[in-house]
Amino acid sequence: MNLKEKISEFPNFPKKGILFRDFSPLLKDPSALSFIADEFAKHFHPKDIDLFAGIESRGFLLACILATRYNKGMIMIRKVGKLPGKTSKLSYKIEYGQDTIEIQKDIISKGQKILICDDLLATGGTAKASAKLIEKVGGKVAGFAFIIELTELNGIKGINQYNCKSLVKY
Amino acid sequence: MNLKEKISEFPNFPKKGILFRDFSPLLKDPSALSFIADEFAKHFHPKDIDLFAGIESRGFLLACILATRYNKGMIMIRKVGKLPGKTSKLSYKIEYGQDTIEIQKDIISKGQKILICDDLLATGGTAKASAKLIEKVGGKVAGFAFIIELTELNGIKGINQYNCKSLVKY
Repeated sequence: MNLKEKISEFPNFPKKGILFRDFSPLLKDPSALSFIADEFAKHFHPKDIDLFAGIESRGFLLACILATRYNKGMIMIRKVGKLPGKTSKLSYKIEYGQDTIEIQKDIISKGQKILICDDLLATGGTAKASAKLIEKVGGKVAGFAFIIELTELNGIKGINQYNCKSLVKY
Repeated sequence: MNLKEKISEFPNFPKKGILFRDFSPLLKDPSALSFIADEFAKHFHPKDIDLFAGIESRGFLLACILATRYNKGMIMIRKVGKLPGKTSKLSYKIEYGQDTIEIQKDIISKGQKILICDDLLATGGTAKASAKLIEKVGGKVAGFAFIIELTELNGIKGINQYNCKSLVKY
């Protein structure tokens, strides 16, 4: 299946100079959702994964698709301020300023293997911070799953010590 | 399965006086994820649904779980400013001020039956606005699926003309 045909392009969104890759058409297509799960299932062995972590908010989608396929659970890596209880936070630089992500401190048992899921790998700032956050709360990073990778931005550089798989490269 | 055992309670989150129901423990448990899909599958017939709509961001999770189970596609109802292309917006009142949700205009074909999914039914403001938005862009609302319903807030009142199902009631 050619997933690229199911990804629309919108120039200058959300701001001038950005070409937005929109996978809404792909989500609408159940055969594409199955195909995505199949492709990741070829790459990541079930024994290497305990839980899928979705990065808010579109990363929740892939984490859920894979959790269902692998019959495993999932956890949320959220924007700051949205998770109750004891949490661990991590801030990282973005183009202008910084962003912060958060996870519940006790959501991962020590040594659990976490596959981090997001829709898109761009500069890799959020991905790298997510790996650090998982490790900070005692988890092991089993790898990264992305639907789309923007190779020009070389985000893979920051996470290439992990097992990374993206399905569509631009 | 007693889903309530997998929902934690956090008093005074995100602000004083609110008792936050957190379904993170449920998401971590693959048998609970299957159980949720099973319960909704008893209630909603596949022929009555064309697509599942997830309300950002935790509604994405349930929409994805059900899309996978029913082998159908899903669409996103997002906070304003996040969707590219031609969109339709709808604003609604919240406790202090207003909120706006957005959908892509052409994501639904005329008359397609959309089951709207969210994690929680509280006052029902977002749910009601979501139904209006789906109808505004030509869809038919097949019903609502919620994991949790806070019955005291009576959010069901605004959407009880639709087929609504929630799994855990407080």
